[in-house]
Amino acid sequence: MRRSIATVCLSGTLEEKLRAASRVGFDGVEIFENDLIASPLRPREIRSLADDLGLDIDLYQPFRDFEGVDDARLAENVRRAEAKFALMVELGVDTVLVCSNATATAIDDDGRAAAQLRLLAETAEPYGVRVAYEALAWGTHVSTYGRSWDLVRRADHPSLGLCLDSFHILSRGDDPSGIRDIPGDRLFFLQLADAPRMSMDVLQWSRHHRCFPGQGGFDLVAFTEHVLAAGYSGPLSLEVFNDVFRAADPERTAADALRSLTVLEDSLARRGEGVPGGRPAVTLTRLPDPVPPRGFGFVEVAATQETAGRVRSVLSALGFAHVRDHRSKPVQLWEHGRARILLNATDPRLGHTWDSAAAITALGVDLDDPEQVGNRAELLCAPALTRRRDRAETPLRAVAAPDGTAVFLCPVGEGGEDPWLADFSAPAVEDVRPGGDTPVTGIDHVGLHQPFDHFDEASLFYSALLGLAAGESTDLASPDGLVRSRALSLPSPDEGPRIALNVSVIGDGPHPDPARGVQHIALACDDIIAVAEAAVAAGLPLMPVPDNYHDDLAARTDLPPHRREQMRRLDILHDHDPDGGGGFLHFFTPLLDGHLFFEVVQRVDGYQGYGARNTPVRMTVHRTGRAA
Amino acid sequence: MRRSIATVCLSGTLEEKLRAASRVGFDGVEIFENDLIASPLRPREIRSLADDLGLDIDLYQPFRDFEGVDDARLAENVRRAEAKFALMVELGVDTVLVCSNATATAIDDDGRAAAQLRLLAETAEPYGVRVAYEALAWGTHVSTYGRSWDLVRRADHPSLGLCLDSFHILSRGDDPSGIRDIPGDRLFFLQLADAPRMSMDVLQWSRHHRCFPGQGGFDLVAFTEHVLAAGYSGPLSLEVFNDVFRAADPERTAADALRSLTVLEDSLARRGEGVPGGRPAVTLTRLPDPVPPRGFGFVEVAATQETAGRVRSVLSALGFAHVRDHRSKPVQLWEHGRARILLNATDPRLGHTWDSAAAITALGVDLDDPEQVGNRAELLCAPALTRRRDRAETPLRAVAAPDGTAVFLCPVGEGGEDPWLADFSAPAVEDVRPGGDTPVTGIDHVGLHQPFDHFDEASLFYSALLGLAAGESTDLASPDGLVRSRALSLPSPDEGPRIALNVSVIGDGPHPDPARGVQHIALACDDIIAVAEAAVAAGLPLMPVPDNYHDDLAARTDLPPHRREQMRRLDILHDHDPDGGGGFLHFFTPLLDGHLFFEVVQRVDGYQGYGARNTPVRMTVHRTGRAA
Repeated sequence: MRRSIATVCLSGTLEEKLRAASRVGFDGVEIFENDLIASPLRPREIRSLADDLGLDIDLYQPFRDFEGVDDARLAENVRRAEAKFALMVELGVDTVLVCSNATATAIDDDGRAAAQLRLLAETAEPYGVRVAYEALAWGTHVSTYGRSWDLVRRADHPSLGLCLDSFHILSRGDDPSGIRDIPGDRLFFLQLADAPRMSMDVLQWSRHHRCFPGQGGFDLVAFTEHVLAAGYSGPLSLEVFNDVFRAADPERTAADALRSLTVLEDSLARRGEGVPGGRPAVTLTRLPDPVPPRGFGFVEVAATQETAGRVRSVLSALGFAHVRDHRSKPVQLWEHGRARILLNATDPRLGHTWDSAAAITALGVDLDDPEQVGNRAELLCAPALTRRRDRAETPLRAVAAPDGTAVFLCPVGEGGEDPWLADFSAPAVEDVRPGGDTPVTGIDHVGLHQPFDHFDEASLFYSALLGLAAGESTDLASPDGLVRSRALSLPSPDEGPRIALNVSVIGDGPHPDPARGVQHIALACDDIIAVAEAAVAAGLPLMPVPDNYHDDLAARTDLPPHRREQMRRLDILHDHDPDGGGGFLHFFTPLLDGHLFFEVVQRVDGYQGYGARNTPVRMTVHRTGRAA
Repeated sequence: MRRSIATVCLSGTLEEKLRAASRVGFDGVEIFENDLIASPLRPREIRSLADDLGLDIDLYQPFRDFEGVDDARLAENVRRAEAKFALMVELGVDTVLVCSNATATAIDDDGRAAAQLRLLAETAEPYGVRVAYEALAWGTHVSTYGRSWDLVRRADHPSLGLCLDSFHILSRGDDPSGIRDIPGDRLFFLQLADAPRMSMDVLQWSRHHRCFPGQGGFDLVAFTEHVLAAGYSGPLSLEVFNDVFRAADPERTAADALRSLTVLEDSLARRGEGVPGGRPAVTLTRLPDPVPPRGFGFVEVAATQETAGRVRSVLSALGFAHVRDHRSKPVQLWEHGRARILLNATDPRLGHTWDSAAAITALGVDLDDPEQVGNRAELLCAPALTRRRDRAETPLRAVAAPDGTAVFLCPVGEGGEDPWLADFSAPAVEDVRPGGDTPVTGIDHVGLHQPFDHFDEASLFYSALLGLAAGESTDLASPDGLVRSRALSLPSPDEGPRIALNVSVIGDGPHPDPARGVQHIALACDDIIAVAEAAVAAGLPLMPVPDNYHDDLAARTDLPPHRREQMRRLDILHDHDPDGGGGFLHFFTPLLDGHLFFEVVQRVDGYQGYGARNTPVRMTVHRTGRAA
């Protein structure tokens, strides 16, 4: 299907918006009137620019408060409409969005409104303009697609049809299945927006919190399926008002937007395939099947020489062994159980997003079919990474995530070792450390802090690329402000990698904030007491947990006293799922350089969380830095 | 009255929060449990620190979900409570906040709940602890102060009383006047929070959008009056959950908080004075009477040599004359009508908040009694500014606004010229420019961009200091994100200075944003065509208004064609008040250095706005910089 985006979704001037939409591959745009009014480009110049950029102009919008008015106002409104139709001819756009009247003085009279809409259509026809009438969720009298369709049917003019907007319909909880009964040729336009589920005034919700399909809580696949079943064949067009996108880089936002439509089309295509006769008449982009990742093949940490030494001490104390060295790069492979850490002694400030002396720069994801995921990545506009490499090196595809982390698509060795390990040889004798026998079993999850304006983008990116599901967002209080956190995992979380994405709820303030930019690697184990004992015996300082925390734990849980004393002594924290979903034990290292720490976790009885209850404590202790 | 603040209002560690509260002069604090749990300080150490800082600990909070539970849970809850009471003894705090049960399993049985609360009070008594029971607005069964009082009365124990929280009561639209009927000795604690009027889920509203009294939409004066009338004599304590304050400098926030209580007490004292027997039994801080400012005595612009030249050109073209020079500083006085601009050829980057080559660094406010306002300023924690000055200079008191702007309190000359003009003498002959005869009459308003985390503070500061009223906030779309704008003026706006405060709705993103940090001076006139004609004739480039704007104006208004053509030719924009409140004509200069521009406005028929409808156009044209 053709893909379009409203200029209001993107930051910048009209010209910058058009260029961004074109560059990432949109087919068309909706021109938002205020963008045109503020532009020095005349309508013909905009038309010409769009032509040069290969963009259609699919919609001019919005025209407000036309129908349901008295006769004096009607005459004014017709004059206003004619001026806009003349402009649309210059602009080369044949469809105008007319929103249902939202003024307090609108007259509640279907006969009047329908007659006035018919007059509008008659006025539009000589200009070659089609009127797409849309029910705003907060329209004074017309606020449902059902009523807007009643009026359009009653007005009965070929130049008058409907515009459907997923937000206006789903935000009200309306049943969209009735859309199937509307003739497809009366559906002039389709605007798509998702939104997080919120209980708030619908106008404010709409104007500030919309997001791209797949980033919110609406079922846009089912919604769009109804629209296609009705026979709609126009563009899929995004209209998203979002405070963050308004201030973000327009090309990044446009790529995020296009990715969301690709995922939507793929989902639609798959649903159609399962149903006899269910394949829609339109052509839908189809991605290669997702390949459930088996877990992390490795996590790569880049660190300055000094911080790398601290990372080595941590890994040693947790039982990791330095088992190999990269054949041509300053990269060590540390291994324990199924956990592999690549320690890259290249200063991460050379090229990574975060200005820190240690950073998670790459994730290796174990895949049965990395080629297929690579092909998925291309269709998802994921930037491919090309690394300088020796001829002899194992070719690994990699893409850049929105926060700059490299995601390597790693083939799993069948029967033998993973192919990329061939790039590593037995290490030189010096600085090799043998592993211990702690019960660390693998990597439980990785925690990545996201740039403020790429949180929703990152969530969609990882979930679409790897077929992970995004959980609900949780806001956690750090000493320097709220941090929003969202976890991604397979539907059966234990069978694949877990990624926790964090972001500051408000943008960066004027004060340096150590909670920002913090990343971590959490290791799984099946006996956290043993791991902590061994780590302490090996001289590893653990992040000190306040005694006040343990007093509170004693007050609110019935953990046996000897266990509580062990936990107090070993700085282990505790969480449990109040709905009976098991328990969680975990401890942390201090921040190694202000930006990176390790965590060891033990999940009990199917606990699936991340110890969010304890995160404010962890952030506060790391902040006070008493441990450093 | 004693003044207290909950630690959850402030950013930082518990120790930082206590230090901030003490430094600005609070008498006490509420300790938020999570702050204590995450602190390395043990309760006795916190007590000792508070003593050193001169702070009482007035409340420990919150204790959740105690009452309305089954017997097994009750036993757990009593055990949990006893642990907290023991902690409170160490902490030296005698009152605990117990919130009404908000869990889904809470049992709706007043008899049971009252009996359990009585048991809690009996448990607390030996520890010397009082239980202050509070109805959460989202409590499962107890969500009104009325019902919480029913339970407390029924439980009937001297260690059990009420905590009242203005947010929980006013957010539900409850009538607070019934509070007068509660015996004052049963009111154990009072928590105050304001909030903007929002239609959203009350839990989210409460957790993210509370603000200090006077910064939102609740009538906290009336509310608190009811509480005092009941005989409450405990502290006025602030409990504000706010995303921005959580991330802001804690001492700044604490000063803002204390200022809000001072203004509240002053309002209470004034209301009591008007009523026979209305003076409350408690002692309230009373500010000197506000002195309605007559207008701007001057606006001072600091600029680099190069930009100062551009400012001079603008002022000349608008009819200003260079009339005097400061006797000892590189400051010129430019004058036209009642408008005075001080042009200070000192690079504003030396000391001002904004990194720009031109900035509004000071406002002079004309006052009949500047001493009285200065005394008000002291009680409002306004930082006094001491400038190096010659002995001979006129003494002027000045304070620093939250954005760093200096506010000078200027006496008005009685019959003669304003006293501070004596510091200026006739200028040297070179570079003196005579004024023109344009009908500029004065300074209409000043637009000041605020740092992201000081917007509410700035609004309260200016309104409290000068007795201005703050209007509603409006969000305006710039090419780089939403800008929130709020105007301050006297209740009769034409009789005093107008100040427009702007702020980016989200924090600063990674991209340079020319819309941020922009300030402007708007000059009033009574014939904008004449001013614009003269300015153009004098060679002043005006900010070009897109032809698309004028086309739209023609479509939506019935301005006569000759007037429209004048406006198009002279780059004049138009707004009107749809409710019949007059019209507005205005034009802009280009940005002089990327951060400062001038505006000329003509208000017609009592228009009281600021042309907000045109602001997005202005921001877009300034952004494209085609004018520069």
